[in-house]
Amino acid sequence: MSYIQATYKFPTKVGGTERKAEGIALGMTVGSWTDLTEMDQQQLLRHKGRVVSVTEVEEDSNLFGIAIIEYPTVNFSPDLPAILTTIFGKLSLDGQIRLQNISFSSGLAEQFPGPRYGVKGIRDILGVYDRPLLMSIFKGVIGRNQAYLNQQLEAQCYGGMDLVKEDEILFENELTPFVTRIKEGNRITKKAYEETGHRTLYAVNLTGRSTDLLNKARWANEAGADVLLFNVHAYGLDLLQAIREDEEVHLPIMAHPAVAGAMSGSSTHGIDYSISLGTFIRAAGADFSLFPSPYGSVALPFQDVQNIVSKLSEENVWKPTFAVPSAGIHPGLVPTLVKDFGVDQIINAGGGIHGHPQGALAGVKSFKQALHATLAGESLENAASKHRELKEALQLWG
Amino acid sequence: MSYIQATYKFPTKVGGTERKAEGIALGMTVGSWTDLTEMDQQQLLRHKGRVVSVTEVEEDSNLFGIAIIEYPTVNFSPDLPAILTTIFGKLSLDGQIRLQNISFSSGLAEQFPGPRYGVKGIRDILGVYDRPLLMSIFKGVIGRNQAYLNQQLEAQCYGGMDLVKEDEILFENELTPFVTRIKEGNRITKKAYEETGHRTLYAVNLTGRSTDLLNKARWANEAGADVLLFNVHAYGLDLLQAIREDEEVHLPIMAHPAVAGAMSGSSTHGIDYSISLGTFIRAAGADFSLFPSPYGSVALPFQDVQNIVSKLSEENVWKPTFAVPSAGIHPGLVPTLVKDFGVDQIINAGGGIHGHPQGALAGVKSFKQALHATLAGESLENAASKHRELKEALQLWG
Repeated sequence: MSYIQATYKFPTKVGGTERKAEGIALGMTVGSWTDLTEMDQQQLLRHKGRVVSVTEVEEDSNLFGIAIIEYPTVNFSPDLPAILTTIFGKLSLDGQIRLQNISFSSGLAEQFPGPRYGVKGIRDILGVYDRPLLMSIFKGVIGRNQAYLNQQLEAQCYGGMDLVKEDEILFENELTPFVTRIKEGNRITKKAYEETGHRTLYAVNLTGRSTDLLNKARWANEAGADVLLFNVHAYGLDLLQAIREDEEVHLPIMAHPAVAGAMSGSSTHGIDYSISLGTFIRAAGADFSLFPSPYGSVALPFQDVQNIVSKLSEENVWKPTFAVPSAGIHPGLVPTLVKDFGVDQIINAGGGIHGHPQGALAGVKSFKQALHATLAGESLENAASKHRELKEALQLWG
Repeated sequence: MSYIQATYKFPTKVGGTERKAEGIALGMTVGSWTDLTEMDQQQLLRHKGRVVSVTEVEEDSNLFGIAIIEYPTVNFSPDLPAILTTIFGKLSLDGQIRLQNISFSSGLAEQFPGPRYGVKGIRDILGVYDRPLLMSIFKGVIGRNQAYLNQQLEAQCYGGMDLVKEDEILFENELTPFVTRIKEGNRITKKAYEETGHRTLYAVNLTGRSTDLLNKARWANEAGADVLLFNVHAYGLDLLQAIREDEEVHLPIMAHPAVAGAMSGSSTHGIDYSISLGTFIRAAGADFSLFPSPYGSVALPFQDVQNIVSKLSEENVWKPTFAVPSAGIHPGLVPTLVKDFGVDQIINAGGGIHGHPQGALAGVKSFKQALHATLAGESLENAASKHRELKEALQLWG
């Protein structure tokens, strides 16, 4: 049988967890059970939610129940809005409860596309296989004109970044229209590639009304865009999937975590980050998932980040999604990043590049020096003695 | 100038609130300020977020900062995903912070449609002006066939309900396809109207892939559906707006609160219910907003419910949205409901109708008896002495 399993955590009293779990399993499916006739029970058996397991844990003198409940796919259509409503619709409103984990049976998973490219596909486009990719962002985009963006993009391309992404808060505007950003981005990345042999992918922010997104994405594809950045949590997961599945859009998709904190930020309510920025993002088809790194000022707990990365990369029917731990990243963190998250990640820097004492180009170089040294097993101190840019970065950020 | 104001609440230290608020106002707009050249400052001034006010409150020996920040509309396109990303995108990921309130300048508000019908428009359709409307739901829909639904719908129509809604967990399925539910619903409500003179509106659950929703809504409109029920928080607010604005869809829209608890359930993180189930729902164009009543087992605090109702009904450029406090509603609560939320609300009952000792028809009658007595200033005890159905309901639920 095809199903989805959901794991919930909620406050409980000794011995009350089983009953609460049964209440969820029934309340979110057939409604009631013991008062049904035998004939009704027979008819509804294949629709009934099933309590897979129940455990109780004590944390800071509070008792919590953890229940895994299985929902048969016959109850819902195979789309993420239906799944969200089935496993956490009414239930999300029912006091303190946290959706901790979800697990698709393989029959159900196959009905979701997963990434079009995934880690290997993106590596194939760039021709880079043996190291984390490097990504940078712009310094200030709001109220800036195209020449300002172009100048920054050039520095980053010629410096040798693998990806450059726009800010998630850059919407359609008169100074830097979507159309112009794509054309100029295309021109600059192409020119840099011809002159340096290094390819840089430019991620443009796909925004606007939901009903226009597919047409805009098709247009972007046509106009030579490299990657679509998408604020999936401001729109809805199913729209990410729609872009992924559109037959005329062949672009990699980079899912931005904006607004995800609203549903995942609390540890007692809402939906775990490993779902919102992990499982769901991968199922719906993002090639990249950005999330707060555990190191910066906007930071997630390390365990949360590990859980996200695990969901993005664990073996299943979907291609792996590139993990992009973001915020607070400077060259001194590169050895930690590689130790913590391996080679298949994207090192994404903003302030760590633009804040370099010698400017953005030196910032890019310092990251490349740090990465090169780390992969060669050399200490950053040692590498810094040979490279001025890395030395200055370490002096500034440690 | 056109703008949106957002009110945030976050833990703070004495004297640190102003700086944190300035950090948000800059971080969510132009990025930095004091290190900009005077020319840059001039160029970016109209894009810069502005701290409108900062206060500090102590709760349970913890100090919280409350900051109102104004974002100029020049920074974003006039759509809800852009607004969400602008006011709570990155910020939602930044530790403990709660988006408490939002306020549109009138120039911005006018770019959102609000309800097509609103309270008065729905009353015009039904021809009922002087009392709360009565709505009921089905008892169990998953795994049930069309005959089962029909039988329940008939009882509710002939009993005299103003609205009957499907469950939010009823998706496209073989037993009761969307198409059949609309046709049968149409047939039954029409027949009941012809025979009793009482009109009942049937709310059908609009589900499926995002890219199919508009076509399905158009089809439903064409096929004679009365009202669309929509799990807006499982899809995204902008899709609600798209359905509202579609020129071929003239149906009232009933927004279901499923999944809203994921972003609003915590009191320390996420987005206040008055926004998720109030302001946003009304701006995007729902004619009805369902939310947990303060009385049932799945209950919201009374103040939260009052805030939602206030946002749905306060005077502004949009028509008012019908408030539908739901869950835990039985006839004994009717006087409290009317006292708390007035005449312009919908009394929405499930168990309070189907759980009546004499069945659903008696349940409907007991609600009408309670409502009639309440509006006439008569006590329920007194009315119960004249009406057997109400008497039995009060005996059961108090």
